[in-house]
Amino acid sequence: MSREEYIRFQFSEELRKEVISLIQSRDDDALHVYFDDIHHADIAEVLGELSLDQATYIIKLLDSDTTAEVLMELDEDDREKILENLSAQEIAEEIAELDTDDAADIVAELSLERQLKVMSKIEDLEHKADIQELLKYAENSAGSLMAKELVKVNENWTVTQCVKEMRIQAEFVTRVHSIYVIDDNDRLIGRLSLKDLLVAKPKDFVKSIFIPKVDYVEASDSVEEVSKLMQKYDLEAIPVVDPQKRLLGRITIDDIVDVIKEEAEKDYQMAAGITQEVEADDSIFELVRARLPWLILGLFGGLASVLILQDFEEVMSLPSVKSLFFFTPLVAAMAGNVGVQSSAIIVQGLANDNVKGSLVNRLLKEVGLSLINGLALGTLVVLFGAILNFDVLFSLTVAISMICVIIVAALIGTFVPILLHRRGIDPAIATGPFITTSNDIFGIFLFFMIAKLILQF
Amino acid sequence: MSREEYIRFQFSEELRKEVISLIQSRDDDALHVYFDDIHHADIAEVLGELSLDQATYIIKLLDSDTTAEVLMELDEDDREKILENLSAQEIAEEIAELDTDDAADIVAELSLERQLKVMSKIEDLEHKADIQELLKYAENSAGSLMAKELVKVNENWTVTQCVKEMRIQAEFVTRVHSIYVIDDNDRLIGRLSLKDLLVAKPKDFVKSIFIPKVDYVEASDSVEEVSKLMQKYDLEAIPVVDPQKRLLGRITIDDIVDVIKEEAEKDYQMAAGITQEVEADDSIFELVRARLPWLILGLFGGLASVLILQDFEEVMSLPSVKSLFFFTPLVAAMAGNVGVQSSAIIVQGLANDNVKGSLVNRLLKEVGLSLINGLALGTLVVLFGAILNFDVLFSLTVAISMICVIIVAALIGTFVPILLHRRGIDPAIATGPFITTSNDIFGIFLFFMIAKLILQF
Repeated sequence: MSREEYIRFQFSEELRKEVISLIQSRDDDALHVYFDDIHHADIAEVLGELSLDQATYIIKLLDSDTTAEVLMELDEDDREKILENLSAQEIAEEIAELDTDDAADIVAELSLERQLKVMSKIEDLEHKADIQELLKYAENSAGSLMAKELVKVNENWTVTQCVKEMRIQAEFVTRVHSIYVIDDNDRLIGRLSLKDLLVAKPKDFVKSIFIPKVDYVEASDSVEEVSKLMQKYDLEAIPVVDPQKRLLGRITIDDIVDVIKEEAEKDYQMAAGITQEVEADDSIFELVRARLPWLILGLFGGLASVLILQDFEEVMSLPSVKSLFFFTPLVAAMAGNVGVQSSAIIVQGLANDNVKGSLVNRLLKEVGLSLINGLALGTLVVLFGAILNFDVLFSLTVAISMICVIIVAALIGTFVPILLHRRGIDPAIATGPFITTSNDIFGIFLFFMIAKLILQF
Repeated sequence: MSREEYIRFQFSEELRKEVISLIQSRDDDALHVYFDDIHHADIAEVLGELSLDQATYIIKLLDSDTTAEVLMELDEDDREKILENLSAQEIAEEIAELDTDDAADIVAELSLERQLKVMSKIEDLEHKADIQELLKYAENSAGSLMAKELVKVNENWTVTQCVKEMRIQAEFVTRVHSIYVIDDNDRLIGRLSLKDLLVAKPKDFVKSIFIPKVDYVEASDSVEEVSKLMQKYDLEAIPVVDPQKRLLGRITIDDIVDVIKEEAEKDYQMAAGITQEVEADDSIFELVRARLPWLILGLFGGLASVLILQDFEEVMSLPSVKSLFFFTPLVAAMAGNVGVQSSAIIVQGLANDNVKGSLVNRLLKEVGLSLINGLALGTLVVLFGAILNFDVLFSLTVAISMICVIIVAALIGTFVPILLHRRGIDPAIATGPFITTSNDIFGIFLFFMIAKLILQF
């Protein structure tokens, strides 16, 4: 056996051209040689750079045990288009090669009509039944994330019997992780680590060596719960049971890694004012749909400030204070920035379960914090005013009003996410344009009101 | 063996009070009974709710094989304080129980003087040498993340020899994952899956059954690279080698999960204008340090718009156009929101390597997108103007200038992160206050300039 040197895959423009020219000249042998040698994740990367027809050509050319994994690595959009170009029979062949969780994901992406067609072409009846079972679970439930493939042993088996059975079962399981122990009623009663098995005597019974403590989730538990549990206890796989504790499947850490990334990206996008998961390469229409609603919210906020400012129109005719109008964008920006900062810290804290202590203490802390920040910023404003020869009282007024705005903005930014969270609403919604917009309005109003109080106009 | 029922740990206020009263009455037996039965991650959760003295009491009370893991689960701040209350000897005992990667993390958190004291108390010389080696690697390098614990076999061993050696090695390894295969020079040449070992014959040689393809990283590779690689290829562990390909250690997926979370949180915080990793429970001083710099940036932006608006002061004395001033917060908000949206999508795309195609095409797409959004928002502005009896030409002017501002804001939001990325700067810096502030300034200036052009004042 040769000692192949591992070379990290690097996609390049030359490579793309080479593959395209091989496709155009229908040089299937060369394509086989090229693609047989690289990882399915790399093949997916190459396909992502080809046209739909070219990508479909490669998928049809390669064996389904490779292409099934490639399909799983593709963007959902790209995959959808390629699947449209495949027959029900071809899709069924891909699915036959996939673990049940991935297979169910692919089937779920098809139209109902195609789902039926594809399912009817799956020859392995057990695989088919497993996929059908997985399709039943609600989206975002542990059941929808689990795979049926796992290694389980009966408590009444000996180690020898175990190893024999495991050899058979392991054929169908990509990664073994834990070995689950069940009783005669298929109920999960514990686990057996591979390490323990390595050191056990052949005639030992499973019931005398297994670990009776095992973390598990129910199929109806939410994906977020599963994710938190697996992270907290550093689990690489967790078994999924029904209400009678019968073993149904297992969830592995790679699925949870995807969940964590998606959660983080969703929160980030929400903070940026993007309502649904979109990517840079989505269509203009999808991007408009994701972005316009938040902009409309921002617009209404802006129009509200038009009304507020209109109310202070007479300030424009007072030479001593009309400069207040020059400061409205500054005040709005400060209110927005502070609000986003406060809410982001709270939202992350809530997500990580580390917002402790009472609400009052937290709000008091924000007041203290804002006072320090506000005094620093206010000093700069007064300095700026001195340079520009503004009246000292005017500069001081601007600084004081701005400090008040900062404090209120921080309070709103802290209070709103906590309130939403307590009402069971995802607080991430409060970090983006929502908090910016409401803080803009409050900020501008407060700014003029306080200035009016101090300057008596 | 009893069939223990697994009960999910739930922290409660009663529980906290109970633990505190047990500590106050020095009821060590009851505390032992209570804490011996729960997971170390749960113990950490309880300690997080206690005072420093109480937490230290528990740490000193329990066995170091439990408390070492508890220490790893604690907040860095909490851990630091507890470590200050422990003697060098006590810390050394904790460290003896930890895997080398965790041990090195703890040691690295100590002052240099304490590091030396603690290291001198570690009895296991191999463990000590391993920790010393790990401390040498640069922060953020693969070497700094790896553990020395792994299972490796020589290509010239038989399966029987393998299993025997592995039993010994596995004693020190929490999770086996892959078995790495080395040659006589300690060079990594492949891997052996546990599954393969299960089905091999006892007299087979490793060299005849191992898989010669193995992903690996060099100790000097960056943590981000390792994270991308492990995610792309769905790896649960990756070996780390030196430039001569000698096997040094391995990195497991649970460490990468932490990296992914930290990366996502860092980007999110940067977008929210928070410069360093802080948590809701950090001190006011730490929070000020993280938040004030971005606010000062925002302030300078706001002061710049004061100067711009001052330049258009004469508009205030023109009754037909003075209302333009009422729209400045709206325009600034729109410019900011659009810029944040555009940049967030690009930053995420860059992080996930799915920003494809040429820069010109991408900018053109943003123009198209902004035109659609702008027309929708512009229509609303004109409607609003009609309701408020604004002059039609004035409303149209506001709408048109706003559309131009939106297009420019989207272009800046797209262009800046791509430019930063090409220059090797983290583009996440461009999603928050940075883009909002520059777009505020550009937006307001553009708005007044275009309005001046159309309305000829």
